[in-house]
Amino acid sequence: MATNTVTEKELDEIYVFAVQLGKDAGKMLMAAAQSRFGSQPVQTFTEKDSSVDIVTQTDEDVEAFIKNSIAQKYPQHKFVGEESYSKGGSRAYQITESSPTWCVDPLDGTVNYTHLFPMFCVSIAFILHGRAVIGVVYAPFLSQLFTACRGRGAWLNETQRLPLIRDPAPPLPKNAPAGCIFSCEWGKDRKDAPDGNLARKVNTFLNMAAEAGGRGGKGGMVHGIRSLGSATLDLAYTAMGAFDIWWEGGCWEWDVAAGIAILQEAGGLVTTANPPEDPATAKIEDAGLGSRLYLAIRPAGDSETESGREGQERTVREVWRRVCQLDYTRPTT
Amino acid sequence: MATNTVTEKELDEIYVFAVQLGKDAGKMLMAAAQSRFGSQPVQTFTEKDSSVDIVTQTDEDVEAFIKNSIAQKYPQHKFVGEESYSKGGSRAYQITESSPTWCVDPLDGTVNYTHLFPMFCVSIAFILHGRAVIGVVYAPFLSQLFTACRGRGAWLNETQRLPLIRDPAPPLPKNAPAGCIFSCEWGKDRKDAPDGNLARKVNTFLNMAAEAGGRGGKGGMVHGIRSLGSATLDLAYTAMGAFDIWWEGGCWEWDVAAGIAILQEAGGLVTTANPPEDPATAKIEDAGLGSRLYLAIRPAGDSETESGREGQERTVREVWRRVCQLDYTRPTT
Repeated sequence: MATNTVTEKELDEIYVFAVQLGKDAGKMLMAAAQSRFGSQPVQTFTEKDSSVDIVTQTDEDVEAFIKNSIAQKYPQHKFVGEESYSKGGSRAYQITESSPTWCVDPLDGTVNYTHLFPMFCVSIAFILHGRAVIGVVYAPFLSQLFTACRGRGAWLNETQRLPLIRDPAPPLPKNAPAGCIFSCEWGKDRKDAPDGNLARKVNTFLNMAAEAGGRGGKGGMVHGIRSLGSATLDLAYTAMGAFDIWWEGGCWEWDVAAGIAILQEAGGLVTTANPPEDPATAKIEDAGLGSRLYLAIRPAGDSETESGREGQERTVREVWRRVCQLDYTRPTT
Repeated sequence: MATNTVTEKELDEIYVFAVQLGKDAGKMLMAAAQSRFGSQPVQTFTEKDSSVDIVTQTDEDVEAFIKNSIAQKYPQHKFVGEESYSKGGSRAYQITESSPTWCVDPLDGTVNYTHLFPMFCVSIAFILHGRAVIGVVYAPFLSQLFTACRGRGAWLNETQRLPLIRDPAPPLPKNAPAGCIFSCEWGKDRKDAPDGNLARKVNTFLNMAAEAGGRGGKGGMVHGIRSLGSATLDLAYTAMGAFDIWWEGGCWEWDVAAGIAILQEAGGLVTTANPPEDPATAKIEDAGLGSRLYLAIRPAGDSETESGREGQERTVREVWRRVCQLDYTRPTT
């Protein structure tokens, strides 16, 4: 396995290893969260400082555990993790065609974890030829484990295949985005600039929310708008079929790799958040893992008039027509 | 118990009954949800129509089960439920000082339930002298049961007392709403009018999100914005301490009664969403159950410079300074 050739039998083994790793890492996260439950000693620092410290330490401990476990079992594999990046390393995209690579976020939904809101998880992806082929997402406070491996299906808690409604999955609504649940995030870029990412996001959210015909014809009248604070779980719930559309910019590959593996294996589609020049006719290509711009559509079955894929592409174009271009770039160093 | 006098021993019994009722009703919800998992027969109607039918039926079945169980056990008690209201009955506020009343939403988070997003629950409150003294909220897909009874604490899954971090709970941040998780909902009023509820909500969300100093000094730079699609669960997570602030208009008493009982018993505060004429000095009064306008603040401990209650009131005033008046009225017939 020093080269990029992995047999199906080896992939089976890697999958079993990845799932166990996710379970173990999730248990570490939950144990650290639970250590904050109940009575606390009176602290001389403020809650905010204190919880940020705790989170940083947990993040680093869990990443070290995952990284060391992989290095021991698969020393030839490459490792890309959030914590390794953030310690002053390059932010250039480091996943290549040639190396089997693990792409890991030890703790996605960090703000949620800080506040003990249950929507946090560990996110582990295994990447071959530049594509995420295994995804393991474990949200221990929700007791929800999402797993997928190329050709082996996507699963909730190892027993319930995704999407939840399947064979066939429901077609996308005829007037999508109407009837859809739209998942999105406010993010960290809060500059009060008329053309900043915050303004662009809010304009987009308003277009998707407003009554049909409103907003100069862009009103999407979605069924609901949800914001969970975890890109990974947004993707997992899209794979489940619970969210119809997820649109977001600014994430990094470790935020999305496992979720994308699960979504694609469940039959979902993920392309770019930013509309191309001709949204009505442009070819709809898979999003690059490191592109920082993502639009995901849930798995969909055929209707009487179109295939599931056609319905997904129609929905992509209807979303592109309503969203603003986001301004997130990829550092090359 | 024909009168409004209930002894503490009777309250104990009613609490035990309410918790069991919540568990049983939640199991019914989950069984109906699970009946939609997996392969489906090919349907001649569309997914949307189909799932709306399913939801309506489940809503009605679960409400009938709860209503009948209460009528059998406590025939003298009054019952107020969402389904009974929506069948053409009066929308006037029917909870009085004089009658022990059950206020029930058999299924909160209906849109979530339709799409099988796990944030749905049953919500049962028992009301004495116009105040919710028992709250039971069970979200079966999350395996999370929230319970509270006046004087008996608020609990997650009957073992973990709320808020999660307690004795003391952390004080609210000194610069709140900065550092806070702000929970809010987009709701159903999507009119594209410059002064409609949608525009007022989005202006409020933007004020809370924007960098400090932005938006003409109203920028709140909250730590995160979350939208779950369930008022009851928003309140439960505020009681847990996971959300610091919840602000919403347009709900009805069955959407909030159980959540308010849990939040207040955990030490949280709930007042009106709409700022009074002088937000800086107005007396902060508890929200009326039927007021349709709610601002909730999580339980908070004392800091070196202020009591927990003072911190909550400071946070209320900082929120009031940033929010727009919402336009929801109470029908009197």
